Amino acid sequence: MTRFRSHLFVCINRREEGNPKGCCASKESEAIAKALKIAAYDRGLKGTVRVNKAGCLDACAFGPAAVVYPQGVWYRGITLDDVDEIVERTLIQGEIIERLVMQAPPSGAPPGTPAPPPTDPAGAS
Amino acid sequence: MTRFRSHLFVCINRREEGNPKGCCASKESEAIAKALKIAAYDRGLKGTVRVNKAGCLDACAFGPAAVVYPQGVWYRGITLDDVDEIVERTLIQGEIIERLVMQAPPSGAPPGTPAPPPTDPAGAS
Repeated sequence: MTRFRSHLFVCINRREEGNPKGCCASKESEAIAKALKIAAYDRGLKGTVRVNKAGCLDACAFGPAAVVYPQGVWYRGITLDDVDEIVERTLIQGEIIERLVMQAPPSGAPPGTPAPPPTDPAGAS
Repeated sequence: MTRFRSHLFVCINRREEGNPKGCCASKESEAIAKALKIAAYDRGLKGTVRVNKAGCLDACAFGPAAVVYPQGVWYRGITLDDVDEIVERTLIQGEIIERLVMQAPPSGAPPGTPAPPPTDPAGAS
């Protein structure tokens, strides 16, 4: 059962000051997540698109980080100035904003690894 | 760029006591999220599968709620007893656990609405 056309998760993980990993929350990610929620709501997207806060997305060096599903598009270094464009181009138009795309994952699959085929989504409805 | 074969988000939203909507956190969702993280780690899934805490997934009446992407499978009423099975069957084997599937969305697309085609995931890598 698919509920949302696009489901955006924004990392709001906060680490203690001085942690060498850094964290998204120290780079305004909470304000960015809030602004994205408001912008999506203002565009009438409630019910078709959802913006959520998330715990650590394991992309600390690239923060503020976000991921859009089911497309699986990862964004890095987003700022408050990017909010309206993310809502308009990615959440509404389905476009990828190339300058925000996370190029190298800090862990996990190497860049460019193709996504596996979905697990029979029809079976979930 | 797809980083994780399966990315599970567990709602840990907490509302004030007495709120008619209820919340997932009042139904052990924080402990469930933690147990899922540990179980996935213990199965050696670090880097290929990720378990994240999330804010309100807009499924309060169905909590504890979770969603697995990119498959877009929604689970409801999960308990600590379901943790090992979710990791083994869904995150490792890619199976859907039918008894946990959320049948009716509280908002958004009606049940059975097919997922839209992905937005050129290759372009994101």
